[in-house]
Amino acid sequence: MNNKQIIFKNRPEGIPDQNTWQLEVNPIPELQEGEILIQQYYISIDPAMRGWMNDTKSYIPPVAIDSVMRAGSIGKVIQNNNNPNFQIGDCISSWGGVQQYAISDGEGCFKVDEKAASMPTFIGTLGMPGMTAYFGILEVANIKEGDIVLVSGAAGAVGSIVGQIAKIKGCKVIGIAGGKEKCDYIINELGFDEAIDYKSENIYTALKNKCPKGVDVYFDNVGGVILDAALSKLRMHATVVICGAISQYNNKKKINGPSNYLSLLVTRSTMKGMVVMDYTKDFGKAAREMGSWLHEGKLKSREDIYEGIENFQETYNRLFSGEKSGKLILKVIE
Amino acid sequence: MNNKQIIFKNRPEGIPDQNTWQLEVNPIPELQEGEILIQQYYISIDPAMRGWMNDTKSYIPPVAIDSVMRAGSIGKVIQNNNNPNFQIGDCISSWGGVQQYAISDGEGCFKVDEKAASMPTFIGTLGMPGMTAYFGILEVANIKEGDIVLVSGAAGAVGSIVGQIAKIKGCKVIGIAGGKEKCDYIINELGFDEAIDYKSENIYTALKNKCPKGVDVYFDNVGGVILDAALSKLRMHATVVICGAISQYNNKKKINGPSNYLSLLVTRSTMKGMVVMDYTKDFGKAAREMGSWLHEGKLKSREDIYEGIENFQETYNRLFSGEKSGKLILKVIE
Repeated sequence: MNNKQIIFKNRPEGIPDQNTWQLEVNPIPELQEGEILIQQYYISIDPAMRGWMNDTKSYIPPVAIDSVMRAGSIGKVIQNNNNPNFQIGDCISSWGGVQQYAISDGEGCFKVDEKAASMPTFIGTLGMPGMTAYFGILEVANIKEGDIVLVSGAAGAVGSIVGQIAKIKGCKVIGIAGGKEKCDYIINELGFDEAIDYKSENIYTALKNKCPKGVDVYFDNVGGVILDAALSKLRMHATVVICGAISQYNNKKKINGPSNYLSLLVTRSTMKGMVVMDYTKDFGKAAREMGSWLHEGKLKSREDIYEGIENFQETYNRLFSGEKSGKLILKVIE
Repeated sequence: MNNKQIIFKNRPEGIPDQNTWQLEVNPIPELQEGEILIQQYYISIDPAMRGWMNDTKSYIPPVAIDSVMRAGSIGKVIQNNNNPNFQIGDCISSWGGVQQYAISDGEGCFKVDEKAASMPTFIGTLGMPGMTAYFGILEVANIKEGDIVLVSGAAGAVGSIVGQIAKIKGCKVIGIAGGKEKCDYIINELGFDEAIDYKSENIYTALKNKCPKGVDVYFDNVGGVILDAALSKLRMHATVVICGAISQYNNKKKINGPSNYLSLLVTRSTMKGMVVMDYTKDFGKAAREMGSWLHEGKLKSREDIYEGIENFQETYNRLFSGEKSGKLILKVIE
């Protein structure tokens, strides 16, 4: 049995290219005592992957050269060499990487209940992006009913959940997304109050018109110009959650810092960084609550699934081109 | 009796020049019912003055053209037209502006006890800069014993008090200042643990050597390159207090935002803006505590006093050139 794997070969400067990764087909080694073999069905494609490739101090060590590209994944246990915690057929969410088969001693592997949601949903709304949204908007931003909440990357895997949870909690929600289709989606399907199309609107003018009173919470997934504009609209004692900065991840030079950061002083506001891994112990509780919102129809999940591990790089590029709708996922089972 | 006044004539772009202010000599109008006349002794010269001249939304309205330049001040009541709260001879801290005599209905005027400290100390360590330091480091940064605290503008009116309070509370304190004299002062006179001379040292190298473990708190008075460097040294769950950005106040273009702001994400840190006016109700308590530290010799106060209202602009320029030692004050009584 062979395993197609995406191997990380060269650290990219700027946008990854054909030298960054290499597809290899390798035999699967025999399991050691206590190990399980997972046949992977779906791989999660996330903006954070770009950061993991840089050899800089971060919240997690960089991906090593010549190792399998790091990724969250979901699949099923197909072999078990005496690991008492798993059974053949268990559906497992893990950090399996971009490959068709993953061997694990069980660390970082979570059993999920296939009856509760589909596999793609378990790496989207009930996986890392959903957890990021849940803890980011509820614990880091600590939203209250009536808050005005602005979120960027609003049609994306994290932003779409952030906005929906804020609506569930009684906030007014304005989303920033790129293009009419995404803006229509967040208004008509997800129930956001307002949408700003940063590709066709001047962001400052749009914010003036669509959040005339300013914002209590800004949840930032993008950085750059949009972060700067949002900082100019903070209400008193506002909170800015720094979740990501997708507009800056491929910069070859220094990233653009937010010129308007002194707005934090003027409005006595707070800017907080977050990393979802800090909330691991509460993932179960969050998944149960979000699972019930999904069943009640209060929360909608959208996945954009591409097929074939050979298409990893092309699929990954959609993160940055914005050519996707919802959580980006690669199906690797053949 | 005539009143020499510095009148704000033109909003500066960049550094104020000879067109920004004009010295006028005007007669003092008769007091209305309930008003007092204050003969001003000392004017507080503060970096915040630069911001007050811009016609932009801020924490306080901009200074109006053709009005007396805004400033904190201290002086004595010399006339009283039936204001029951004050007596002739009372020593008064107020927002009297850059002029020799100020008329007030008493709002924003605080009586101070001349026996407790000198007049200059009441507009320095026991005035706005001292209050900013006190609430900034104790309430906003919320320091704990053992914290590693980094402060910029460390020989200045705010920074010198920030560092000394952090030492009183059992922190390790590193100060950033410009020039050997200031660095020697904060180490030898104020008891800081380390000093970095940003004029002669590479700030990144110096931080690496002098805070090898990183910092729990960074108190920023300067912005720009130093803020960026400090962000690269945050420990986990650190706090950055944004108190000011003197390096950026005269920029004609956009200010430089902190490129390294994503360090907030990596280290799960918080950046908070503050404005001292929010703590007005607790100024009395803070002044009593800082007053007793002054008497016990735990806190040292240094004022740099220049003379003559005619020299206002030259004195003001010392804020930005750094040619001063301690709290900058202008004596306006002749």
